[in-house]
Amino acid sequence: MKRIFTLFATLVAFAMSLSAQSVISPGGNLTLTFSLEEGTPYYAVDYKGSPVILRSSLGLDLEGSDDLMGGFQVKATSESSFDEVWEPVWGEESHIRNHYNELLVELTQPATKRQMNIRFRLYDDGFGLRYEFPRQKRLQYFTVKEEQTQFALTGDHRALWIPGDYDTQEYEYFDSRLSEIAQLANTTTGSHASTTRFSDWGVQTAITMKSDQGLYITLHEAALVDYSCMHLVYDPESYTFTSWLTPDAIGNKAYMQTPCHTPWRTGVITDDARELLASRLTLNLNEPCALEDTSWIRPVKYMGVWWELITNKNRWSYTSGGNIKLADTDYSTLKPHGRHGATTENVKRYIDFASRYGFDQLLVEGWNIGWEDWSGKHKDFVFDFVTPYPDFNLTELQQYAGERGMRLMMHHETSSSIRNYERRMDRAYSFMVENGYNAVKSGYVGNIFPRGEHHFGQLMNNHYLYAVQKAAEYKIVVNAHEAVRPTGLCRTWPNLIGNESARGTEFQAFGGTQPRHATILPFTRLQGGPMDYTPGIFCMDIGSFSPGNKSKVLSTLANQLALYVTLYSPLQMAADLPENYERYLDAFQFIVDVPVEWSESRYLMAEPGDYVVIARKDKRSECWYVGGVTDECSRTVELSFDFLEGGKEYVAKVYADAEDADYQSNPEAYVIYEGRVESASTHTIKMARGGGFAISIREVTPEDKMVERLK
Amino acid sequence: MKRIFTLFATLVAFAMSLSAQSVISPGGNLTLTFSLEEGTPYYAVDYKGSPVILRSSLGLDLEGSDDLMGGFQVKATSESSFDEVWEPVWGEESHIRNHYNELLVELTQPATKRQMNIRFRLYDDGFGLRYEFPRQKRLQYFTVKEEQTQFALTGDHRALWIPGDYDTQEYEYFDSRLSEIAQLANTTTGSHASTTRFSDWGVQTAITMKSDQGLYITLHEAALVDYSCMHLVYDPESYTFTSWLTPDAIGNKAYMQTPCHTPWRTGVITDDARELLASRLTLNLNEPCALEDTSWIRPVKYMGVWWELITNKNRWSYTSGGNIKLADTDYSTLKPHGRHGATTENVKRYIDFASRYGFDQLLVEGWNIGWEDWSGKHKDFVFDFVTPYPDFNLTELQQYAGERGMRLMMHHETSSSIRNYERRMDRAYSFMVENGYNAVKSGYVGNIFPRGEHHFGQLMNNHYLYAVQKAAEYKIVVNAHEAVRPTGLCRTWPNLIGNESARGTEFQAFGGTQPRHATILPFTRLQGGPMDYTPGIFCMDIGSFSPGNKSKVLSTLANQLALYVTLYSPLQMAADLPENYERYLDAFQFIVDVPVEWSESRYLMAEPGDYVVIARKDKRSECWYVGGVTDECSRTVELSFDFLEGGKEYVAKVYADAEDADYQSNPEAYVIYEGRVESASTHTIKMARGGGFAISIREVTPEDKMVERLK
Repeated sequence: MKRIFTLFATLVAFAMSLSAQSVISPGGNLTLTFSLEEGTPYYAVDYKGSPVILRSSLGLDLEGSDDLMGGFQVKATSESSFDEVWEPVWGEESHIRNHYNELLVELTQPATKRQMNIRFRLYDDGFGLRYEFPRQKRLQYFTVKEEQTQFALTGDHRALWIPGDYDTQEYEYFDSRLSEIAQLANTTTGSHASTTRFSDWGVQTAITMKSDQGLYITLHEAALVDYSCMHLVYDPESYTFTSWLTPDAIGNKAYMQTPCHTPWRTGVITDDARELLASRLTLNLNEPCALEDTSWIRPVKYMGVWWELITNKNRWSYTSGGNIKLADTDYSTLKPHGRHGATTENVKRYIDFASRYGFDQLLVEGWNIGWEDWSGKHKDFVFDFVTPYPDFNLTELQQYAGERGMRLMMHHETSSSIRNYERRMDRAYSFMVENGYNAVKSGYVGNIFPRGEHHFGQLMNNHYLYAVQKAAEYKIVVNAHEAVRPTGLCRTWPNLIGNESARGTEFQAFGGTQPRHATILPFTRLQGGPMDYTPGIFCMDIGSFSPGNKSKVLSTLANQLALYVTLYSPLQMAADLPENYERYLDAFQFIVDVPVEWSESRYLMAEPGDYVVIARKDKRSECWYVGGVTDECSRTVELSFDFLEGGKEYVAKVYADAEDADYQSNPEAYVIYEGRVESASTHTIKMARGGGFAISIREVTPEDKMVERLK
Repeated sequence: MKRIFTLFATLVAFAMSLSAQSVISPGGNLTLTFSLEEGTPYYAVDYKGSPVILRSSLGLDLEGSDDLMGGFQVKATSESSFDEVWEPVWGEESHIRNHYNELLVELTQPATKRQMNIRFRLYDDGFGLRYEFPRQKRLQYFTVKEEQTQFALTGDHRALWIPGDYDTQEYEYFDSRLSEIAQLANTTTGSHASTTRFSDWGVQTAITMKSDQGLYITLHEAALVDYSCMHLVYDPESYTFTSWLTPDAIGNKAYMQTPCHTPWRTGVITDDARELLASRLTLNLNEPCALEDTSWIRPVKYMGVWWELITNKNRWSYTSGGNIKLADTDYSTLKPHGRHGATTENVKRYIDFASRYGFDQLLVEGWNIGWEDWSGKHKDFVFDFVTPYPDFNLTELQQYAGERGMRLMMHHETSSSIRNYERRMDRAYSFMVENGYNAVKSGYVGNIFPRGEHHFGQLMNNHYLYAVQKAAEYKIVVNAHEAVRPTGLCRTWPNLIGNESARGTEFQAFGGTQPRHATILPFTRLQGGPMDYTPGIFCMDIGSFSPGNKSKVLSTLANQLALYVTLYSPLQMAADLPENYERYLDAFQFIVDVPVEWSESRYLMAEPGDYVVIARKDKRSECWYVGGVTDECSRTVELSFDFLEGGKEYVAKVYADAEDADYQSNPEAYVIYEGRVESASTHTIKMARGGGFAISIREVTPEDKMVERLK
């Protein structure tokens, strides 16, 4: 009896060692093949019959216990399908289809009696895979030394990437062959308040590649919850990326308690770049909305006492000198330096302007005590989040805003002192509710306190989500800057209405950002969720209003308008100063008109790093809005209006670069013209170097009889 | 002009390089001499003309900047005196005199243009010194790599010490020559949930030494606020201790922002061991009470559902099996294992007993969900502090207790998951107030979360104080176990009514603690503040009620009674089970009678490691209580009652070891007898091996005519 059993077991093991199983995406575009070879799990992905991810190994290296990389047997496999349409609280479209075929591989590691499952989901535009650890006796708590997920590519693709860093994502993108990563990574310039590089070959996700065969591949992750953020490290010999997690203060990568699973590791794969933009894979791999009532979550268009601070025209601080101990400081006895931005008077000026043009909220930074000595000091008690400066009359201002149909937007800069923020969070959110705020911009500038932790480690990722979940209890929406890059969590927690987590417009005031940046973000950073990019700069010569600041905004004015369409966000800022908008009120009208809620989005033209043209339909009307941006090259596009409903006539108002516009020599030159269009119309628009265009389209009305057809 | 100035500066520098200045204690016992030699600050201390601390250097080594150890000049020195009497909210006496002479030395470091002051306070029973960093331009934020405070001793003294450890103080004391530290430190046995040793020559404070000339020296620190806890490392060649601070997760020792200062480094010095016990130096070097209203702070005598858990008779947990995720666990669906201690029924049994004998509170551990899987896992969300187990009816029990003149005492075990506790602290304290609690025992078992931090580092020290300050907002008193050793902070925050921070009675159930331990604690651990030692064990054979536990309590029953007097605390527990007290209700009467508030204390006999006899007067009556304990040796003491008021007659009730009592062979044998005493009376009492005695003394009444004179 014993001998027979042994023989049987051997046969099973032999069979398992060769076992391979494929799963095909619903429409047949993608095939993913799982195999177990000599105990090691592998996967490979084909797109339309061609390999995209070659045989790549899967597993995790554990700290203080046997690894989960080999010695496995397949216990069972199962396939299933899923197809549903869900409605996001906000998004690029009002209905999202989630359609995939799934392969679940249940593995056992006989030597340790442990179990690990790998779940694969195949979409027509990509795949997701994750490790799952069921409840079991021999694996309860474990520490991840490193995750060893490979992505073996088929060649030395062109890639759009930023260097791996545990603490900042605010880099300009490189556009290079993968083999050039190490050489270029060290040419990165610009200062970051907190930065920790770890490998010359390290990159951050989302990274978007293009093969010589014209295939687009975006690697990223979805549903980053209770785990550390994944970087990728490239091996040029094998064209292979391997996962590289963010460590904690003692060098470990993640702490797990079964039952649990990792985030999804995702690849979006397509031969049409527009489909990268249309992909909802990241959102679909997140859990459904966790909130019962979402009626209080509303997109927000806002202005802010912000750009004047960023450009150094005015200051966050109230008084001069550093070395402030908040607990010991009586601001009422201190002499103001006279350049404080968040004064009652100045804030009223913004409210007057913003309310005139229908904005929802006004962000005010520098309203609260502590800004004299907040950055780079690794302070514990750096802000209290509830005490205004003496010259900021919060009650008066919130009432002033309310009388004009607006609210103030709260600002919680934490200086990355997380212990302090968590200690004060309930009080800070209560204070917001008591004072009529319902949105907060939070910030994580500088190195993390407690020391040794990183912005993208598990402890911090748990903090960011904690802040969002707590905010939901208070019906507050959150826009977190310098937090970990989004991975679609806004599906589950739609009060996370924005993140920065990339190089935003502020860098235009710190020396500038190349025009191609805005043509890359939709394919990389925005794959995980919306970005508070803060567009809408109209005055490109910053020194003209902030003497001493030599920066020029590297964009045309029309390009700035286009960003409201091309960079999707339910939270959009008009970032420039009222006085700069006053100079070009006709162009400002586009910002006034453009909505922040959409029912449909059409990705008309796209090439990462070169150009993006997108049309979106307002969720609350029949109006459409189109935005197009280009990189450093001037481009002429032939725009088709076939996204419009057939048989209807519309009026299109075009905001385009003037003939002689140029982001370097003549950035503020634009033209505005109107014309009738219909579904069959086409129109040629020239984008200047660093330029773009914006179009607002509405149904024709009787008053429009004089409007001619658009040529 | 320039030459003259240079000459003058040289002269000053020359003079400064030899500068020495002494300060003498008010009564002349102590002389401290400061000197600056070749730019390095030194101090030395004499006691009654003999050297105690030889020339010892002072300074700090900084991380990332020049050190603060040399290159100094004396800018100014100033002397002052202080003498006041203050009234503690609770204490060993109702009035405390704070009388010292002070020397402030202001130093400059010309090469760096930085300033550092050293403040010395001389008492007749010891000294304190601290570093102060005034507000200045060239020193604002700095990081302490190591504090370099030396204590150069005069010889290889005998010492009572425990090994240096960043995470636990729960060691038995060694009684050895200083030269034997390294050899003995590694013989330490016993398991600790969190332990980090750092040097064979490292010890913790308070450490008490005795020179061959009979001089007692206790080194410790006072007012440990916003700094890391100090250890000492011994150099046997030079008989010198040097400070060694507790590091943080990245290896730094402390982070400072000027103006600021270190805690006081203290030496209590005397030729009479009783004066060590009478010293109030640690309290006096703390700031006055920070609370306006202290009326809500009351000493507490309590029992607890605790010893039955510690001895493993019953359990904290409700159900079997580990690996619980609190957020996902519905306890109402789980099967109880039947050995849960904190059941409504069992708690009522304790309340019935404790209320009959006038106790104030009943501690209940294991009342809240999470105990199935709480320890050693380094979990983040380990307890929620507000959800009772299904079989613990909190509302019913608090009412049941209230009807009997008692309250329940809250228990917050944090499992050292500090982030979780701080996130939930406001809610946890609010819950206490809503449910009638006003005292909390908190616990910090296991390694600290966030990982890499230590129990005694600056981050944790700030946490412990934060918990006490927050508690004060809710009028809650705190008894923190496994927290940093006290340094007199209870003067400033008298709602810190207790700490463990040493090896308590629980270790009697974990294999035992040698009898001498209780004769050492008053000279070491208790120098910083009261200890929740949890005395009062009446059943020494633990296996008799908790089968399988082989531990014996290494103490006689009379010794257990004495501890209520010899180990001062405003929080005293009767730690044993009701059924064990029921067996010896006549002896239990002492615990019922003994108060927890005193107006006077007299230290009658004392030798560290050998014996302690103390008399204390009740704060609310004319009654006195005497306690005496001995080590492993039997001792006969001739007790004088000269602490009693002359001309009055008293009745003394003596609880003594029976003639054949012995902590090993016959620990529960005691005798009780009464007799009349007066100020001139003496009485001879024999303490058994591991024994002791307790006496309650009250004024004679007419009913006492039959009571004979005590012989």
